[in-house]
Amino acid sequence: MTQFSITPLNTTLKDALTHKINYKTKPQGALGQLEAIALQVGLIQQTLTPQLKQPTMLVFAGDHGITQSGVSPYPQAVTAQMVLNFLAGGAAINVFSRQVGMQLRVIDAGVNHVFASDTCLIDAKIGMGTANFLEYPAMTLAQCDVAMTRGAELARSEIAAGCNIMGFGEMGIGNTSSASCLMSVLTGIPITQCVGRGTGLDDAGLANKIHVLTQAIQHHALQTTEAHIVLSTFGGFEIAMMVGAMLGAAEQEIVLLIDGFIATAALLVASKLEPAVLDYCIFAHRSDEHAHKALLDYLGATPLLDIGLRLGEGTGAVLAYPLVQSAVNFLNEMASFESAGVSERELS
Amino acid sequence: MTQFSITPLNTTLKDALTHKINYKTKPQGALGQLEAIALQVGLIQQTLTPQLKQPTMLVFAGDHGITQSGVSPYPQAVTAQMVLNFLAGGAAINVFSRQVGMQLRVIDAGVNHVFASDTCLIDAKIGMGTANFLEYPAMTLAQCDVAMTRGAELARSEIAAGCNIMGFGEMGIGNTSSASCLMSVLTGIPITQCVGRGTGLDDAGLANKIHVLTQAIQHHALQTTEAHIVLSTFGGFEIAMMVGAMLGAAEQEIVLLIDGFIATAALLVASKLEPAVLDYCIFAHRSDEHAHKALLDYLGATPLLDIGLRLGEGTGAVLAYPLVQSAVNFLNEMASFESAGVSERELS
Repeated sequence: MTQFSITPLNTTLKDALTHKINYKTKPQGALGQLEAIALQVGLIQQTLTPQLKQPTMLVFAGDHGITQSGVSPYPQAVTAQMVLNFLAGGAAINVFSRQVGMQLRVIDAGVNHVFASDTCLIDAKIGMGTANFLEYPAMTLAQCDVAMTRGAELARSEIAAGCNIMGFGEMGIGNTSSASCLMSVLTGIPITQCVGRGTGLDDAGLANKIHVLTQAIQHHALQTTEAHIVLSTFGGFEIAMMVGAMLGAAEQEIVLLIDGFIATAALLVASKLEPAVLDYCIFAHRSDEHAHKALLDYLGATPLLDIGLRLGEGTGAVLAYPLVQSAVNFLNEMASFESAGVSERELS
Repeated sequence: MTQFSITPLNTTLKDALTHKINYKTKPQGALGQLEAIALQVGLIQQTLTPQLKQPTMLVFAGDHGITQSGVSPYPQAVTAQMVLNFLAGGAAINVFSRQVGMQLRVIDAGVNHVFASDTCLIDAKIGMGTANFLEYPAMTLAQCDVAMTRGAELARSEIAAGCNIMGFGEMGIGNTSSASCLMSVLTGIPITQCVGRGTGLDDAGLANKIHVLTQAIQHHALQTTEAHIVLSTFGGFEIAMMVGAMLGAAEQEIVLLIDGFIATAALLVASKLEPAVLDYCIFAHRSDEHAHKALLDYLGATPLLDIGLRLGEGTGAVLAYPLVQSAVNFLNEMASFESAGVSERELS
């Protein structure tokens, strides 16, 4: 299995960064979460003057055999159709990436479709979709390893080209089902509390999804919570590749911007392999997908946005990116009490 | 008193806008609050293809006599010092406005300082700070009326120059005390629930602030909740001018972007005069200032951000602006299921 080695955050500059943040012309703490992010980005980059360079969204797409069991209101073909929509520039992730100035990379991790070779799609296809994990492991351990390795390579390649903040998104009809099983098995939270409506299941659809996923977990009856095994049993190719990309990015000590439920489930897997990956993560938003709140709580994460998003694609990460820019900008550009000639507080 | 005439939102295009939003390549509702904002901006502009033009922040500054009663940990002089910081470009509002591309207008509504005439400060000074409303009305009814009229003129002038989305911010040491009293008297919520720590009072400071404001409300013992009277009794020059600017902007049917506790208190006053002003408002954030949540709830408002901000200046409004852009952008730029050849849902 691919090994990663992630260094916990070096906190040498914590006092100096905190001092710089506190002496900006504002009451201490008045910029709320932006202050925590300014500190975190400063620590990640080990500087008092961090910069965000070539912000990049990696969007991994893959298909899921579990869709054969009616867990999504959309047909599997939508994964490929949406990838073509990404390539044509018409999806939400395109619109928002253009707006905020993030580069968008669309990666075929395992879509059940043969794409024309003249597109700008990154071909990292592991297979034509996973097996239905209601009966079989979603993928082999070897496939899982290749997916993670490819993900890490993709991340390293962007970083080598100058990127120092990377967002992670996904497209894959059925992938909330994978994420729910990963969450339940790896956290011990009952599957019923890990399942949501995905792209919009009604009550009957939700009941069926819970039934199917309960069966699947019982069927495999894993005697281990070893993350590679759980990932290969219930994951998706796009999720496994995202796990590798997250670990590869954190290994290079850049900022990771985590999107919604599926990206957070991938991060959960990554954190079971290398807990220090969490030091490098900014959590973009709390999704409207039911289980995301519990998963964020499990990871001790405080997300930036909570505006009822449940689209995936990395849209929450891109929408939160301007706030990360704001955190870095205030740290670099705001005057201090001293430099601006502003009086400090009188009362204690 | 200045009269305003605000037209309730014309909902003629509601069905057409809703259809356009629902048939974008995403599950219905998957963009959460952005969908509500896209609808609202479309209705305000009465078009299926809204545009945001010359986004402008009006930041009103004024001083408050109530600071003589120890309601803030900062000295009154900080208001003028921060105005100079705004003019020098070193405050948070400068940094964030530059980042998101909003024009910044700084208005002296009544700062207790004579500014040099060669600055780009907009001089609309009503007086050298309000009277201490622990003993006197903060301003005369005539001053209140002039402030509102000037505010409306300023808004109209920006709109005439092409602005169609306007944010409202403020600077004024002591102005959370004004906002708390306005909130309590106009909503009937007890003053103890309308008071927060402002720029950072400790427990003793908070107790004193509650004591002072309780006394002030008892002292005036207003027999009316007529908004002009309440505003002149407890308001600030910057708050009164902001009320006028909000009403003047809504009268011209543009989008209003409401910042934190003090801006929301100004909007409360405006809504008591002309309830339809609320139709034009996007609520930028829920401040960390204690009473803001209750005030937003009173107004039925769902803010975009909730990241522990309590700085004022309009910073929350500017930080939320990219999300408003995103709402407009997805409406204009995203493909529809039909145009992108993406299958719609199969299950009901």
